[in-house]
Amino acid sequence: MGDRRWAVIGVGAVGGLYGGRLAAAGHEVHLVARSDAETLAERGLQVDSPGGDFHVRPAVHRSSDTVPPVDGVLVALKTTGNDALAELLAPFDRPGTLVVLLQNGLGAEAAVAGVVPSATVLGGLCFVCSNKVGPGHVRHLAQGMVMVGEYTADGSPAGITAAVTDVVDDLRGSGTDAVADPDLALARWRKLVWNTPFNGLSVVLDAATDQLIADPWVRRLARGVMEEVVAGARATTGRPLEDGWVDTMLAHTETLIPYAPSMKVDYDAGRPMEIDAIYGAPIRAAAAAGCPMPLTSAIEAQLHFLDRRSQGN
Amino acid sequence: MGDRRWAVIGVGAVGGLYGGRLAAAGHEVHLVARSDAETLAERGLQVDSPGGDFHVRPAVHRSSDTVPPVDGVLVALKTTGNDALAELLAPFDRPGTLVVLLQNGLGAEAAVAGVVPSATVLGGLCFVCSNKVGPGHVRHLAQGMVMVGEYTADGSPAGITAAVTDVVDDLRGSGTDAVADPDLALARWRKLVWNTPFNGLSVVLDAATDQLIADPWVRRLARGVMEEVVAGARATTGRPLEDGWVDTMLAHTETLIPYAPSMKVDYDAGRPMEIDAIYGAPIRAAAAAGCPMPLTSAIEAQLHFLDRRSQGN
Repeated sequence: MGDRRWAVIGVGAVGGLYGGRLAAAGHEVHLVARSDAETLAERGLQVDSPGGDFHVRPAVHRSSDTVPPVDGVLVALKTTGNDALAELLAPFDRPGTLVVLLQNGLGAEAAVAGVVPSATVLGGLCFVCSNKVGPGHVRHLAQGMVMVGEYTADGSPAGITAAVTDVVDDLRGSGTDAVADPDLALARWRKLVWNTPFNGLSVVLDAATDQLIADPWVRRLARGVMEEVVAGARATTGRPLEDGWVDTMLAHTETLIPYAPSMKVDYDAGRPMEIDAIYGAPIRAAAAAGCPMPLTSAIEAQLHFLDRRSQGN
Repeated sequence: MGDRRWAVIGVGAVGGLYGGRLAAAGHEVHLVARSDAETLAERGLQVDSPGGDFHVRPAVHRSSDTVPPVDGVLVALKTTGNDALAELLAPFDRPGTLVVLLQNGLGAEAAVAGVVPSATVLGGLCFVCSNKVGPGHVRHLAQGMVMVGEYTADGSPAGITAAVTDVVDDLRGSGTDAVADPDLALARWRKLVWNTPFNGLSVVLDAATDQLIADPWVRRLARGVMEEVVAGARATTGRPLEDGWVDTMLAHTETLIPYAPSMKVDYDAGRPMEIDAIYGAPIRAAAAAGCPMPLTSAIEAQLHFLDRRSQGN
């Protein structure tokens, strides 16, 4: 029986899976949902998963204001909804509260730290294939690992803090493969090495990962983008990624089952894409450190055009 | 009545228009055609044009071997067909023969000069909106200017040579707005400043020029590509393009009627795209001069992917 009380902001593919597991493990869980609140309150949350389907009935709130004090908050909105974070998170600003951002890309922790200055801000990198298939209904397909690290304002490695250990313990205790990471900033860049080329190119070229990696021209372009991200990681953190990480990621891509990255899934579903988190924030951070990312910025511009046309604005 | 005898290689939108005009002006014209030879021989060549429709019946050949000695050759194949140029042009290798490449991009003159070392090689840059609407049937829609310059092996300006004047005279005499240019190499780069961004982006983003130029992200990307082309021009020729040429071309694009560049027309019709002439050759030339073109090369790679998928190979 978990003894920490959790809130979950955003009950989609990620928040539904990990928040649902916490509830199933016995934690008191409070879901903060907007469009799906009614369905969640009436029918609860259904998670289909290779590890076993389950159904839970956590408390449901339409606003964070009605949530009682909690020990931890999982923030699992898409970054495209981050304009709402100030309002959603302000009520949780208490010393000792663990605010864990389960989001893609760069930049969100810094914004959140400004909103909840008394709380402890962490980032969780999700390596998971999961979809929301309907209100209150999540289908977990494969993988699921979460790397957890603590945010520091200057981007230096926080180490494996007590906060990191607490979050990892609760995730593991609920059946999630959680791993503590002493260096959140570098971990986020490491994940971008794969995400940045393959998210955007899958959208711009309307192709799955196996088609992209099989084409010698796109493979070379993907390598070029990856090398820009590796250089950006070094320039912004002052610390290098592992030698050969680009080759590792290219080889890894060849072993994937044909796969549509999250940005492609969003675009095909008519949702806004997480362009700023995966492209804009890294490009700006690298530029501020004197490191241009021209290949990456070409794709960023194309994505903005497609997003604008898709969203009709 | 024209007194120069002309051959025309490739009787499409460009060769049909300019070659047809030479025939209509009284020149003896020999068309070298492959797929359309039968139709051309039976029905002649029909050109619909704002300046007046006309119909001509030049001699038609399936091979250059049966063409009698000519004074000039208009080469109007798409560059994607340039593998055939050695065979098509070898019979015209005589001193004094004017071989005029009415093609897009960079690089074809150097290859042709190797095939017809005794002839005089020129380039013609066509600013024309014209389509082949059927075998032996060309529809000229707008514009039509041709800039003519003489090729030099070292890329230095040839000046306004007698050969240039002869070609310009015949084109003008047949109703074409022809202009002599003393510096072919720089003229080709100047034209690429517009062609390189807008051809590729119209295909990758499936958009016409007005949509592209109206989007601030794409406009910035187009500017970046243009600046790479301007730098490539300077690095490879040693001579600068006009100050402000990028701004001029961006402003010009805003005044265009919504327009699909030739590469977009080719792609939508299922034809191969002129990627190497408009992207590969300039990128290689600039790289050899120490000038990288990363934004341009990102688009090049995407175009190769799309071309390969479209052509099914």
